[in-house]
Amino acid sequence: MELEHCFPVWNKLTAAQQEALHRSTREKQVKKGALLHAGGQDCTGLLIVRQGQLRAYILSEEGREVTIYRLVEGDVCLFSASCMMRSIQFDVTVEAERDTALWVVPAEVYRGLMEQSTAVANYTNDLMGSRFSEVMWLMEQIMWRSFDQRLAQFLLQESALEESDLLPLTHERIAAHLGTAREVVTRMLRYFQGEGMVRLVRGSVELTDVSKLKALCGQK
Amino acid sequence: MELEHCFPVWNKLTAAQQEALHRSTREKQVKKGALLHAGGQDCTGLLIVRQGQLRAYILSEEGREVTIYRLVEGDVCLFSASCMMRSIQFDVTVEAERDTALWVVPAEVYRGLMEQSTAVANYTNDLMGSRFSEVMWLMEQIMWRSFDQRLAQFLLQESALEESDLLPLTHERIAAHLGTAREVVTRMLRYFQGEGMVRLVRGSVELTDVSKLKALCGQK
Repeated sequence: MELEHCFPVWNKLTAAQQEALHRSTREKQVKKGALLHAGGQDCTGLLIVRQGQLRAYILSEEGREVTIYRLVEGDVCLFSASCMMRSIQFDVTVEAERDTALWVVPAEVYRGLMEQSTAVANYTNDLMGSRFSEVMWLMEQIMWRSFDQRLAQFLLQESALEESDLLPLTHERIAAHLGTAREVVTRMLRYFQGEGMVRLVRGSVELTDVSKLKALCGQK
Repeated sequence: MELEHCFPVWNKLTAAQQEALHRSTREKQVKKGALLHAGGQDCTGLLIVRQGQLRAYILSEEGREVTIYRLVEGDVCLFSASCMMRSIQFDVTVEAERDTALWVVPAEVYRGLMEQSTAVANYTNDLMGSRFSEVMWLMEQIMWRSFDQRLAQFLLQESALEESDLLPLTHERIAAHLGTAREVVTRMLRYFQGEGMVRLVRGSVELTDVSKLKALCGQK
């Protein structure tokens, strides 16, 4: 995958802008678990996932974390460059969920492009709108969905991401993702196991009835 | 207040763009309680508050509402024009909280400006970033703050908006704002009253110790 394939607006840039982007963008390799960005003070720049997977989450004062979105190959992380937008007043932490290869576009270079090119500015609007929509979805889950539905949804998403029915996830880890306590997750997983929807193995969850899980969260 | 004062980027528009904006913008007067926008299918256009107050909220399937932000004089409502941004995939409802005078900029006119002018596109980014920040703040309140702090914060905000310590709000109404049950609000308000922070009158809440309320939510 090349840098130009990750920018839907690449062809709307001038040759000079394309050249500036190529010249300033750095490649970076990080190991699973690496912290790539920690809050709004950290002016990391725009991150583009070349290969691997990132997780963006928010952190409470007591250290609890809630995943707000995942980024996979070809995805662009805008909030790691939020220092360039004074209106963004919240802190997102970004970590590598797998060994990941990235491109890093310096924030000031990207900001310059946004100021020169309506295509880049409107593309940035689209990116922000997409992340905003994900966060609104999450907020609705938290406020209005019962927890069984949230957990089923989460397991199905993980399974789609991993392309596997066997998920190497501890209850602790699932609880961190969903912003709840481990006990709550364990209780619900046991209920799911009793219903034949999952099988619990040490440190893993195996989905044994995907269609039943989908039915639970109202999917076909 | 004139239209041009509400657009920080007015002076960056060409004379033709300013003219097009003036020509296409309609004035509108609505009564308190009027529904101005209902979800993403509703292509209302950009709303600018000339005088009065709007409330934007999300609605659960069961009809519960949670206020996500308020708009006062000079504020611009972007999500009433979300039809122009395909990346926005959530529904916001907008209603008048007071008798309100508005300008309405048709969505296609605003979209056109965003495509022509980097200033307008980046201003739109800033607007979206601000709303996003408000929603993230709210999500953190919901997930991590104890309810006494949320309620105190809400009363203080209302008081600042109303410029009064006497708030004409029923417990039902407060519960709708905070996405919780009336009983929960009543219980906490009684606790506040016991602590001397508020006085409960039929249909109203009077703040009697603002500094204690502020201390509760960690403000000076």
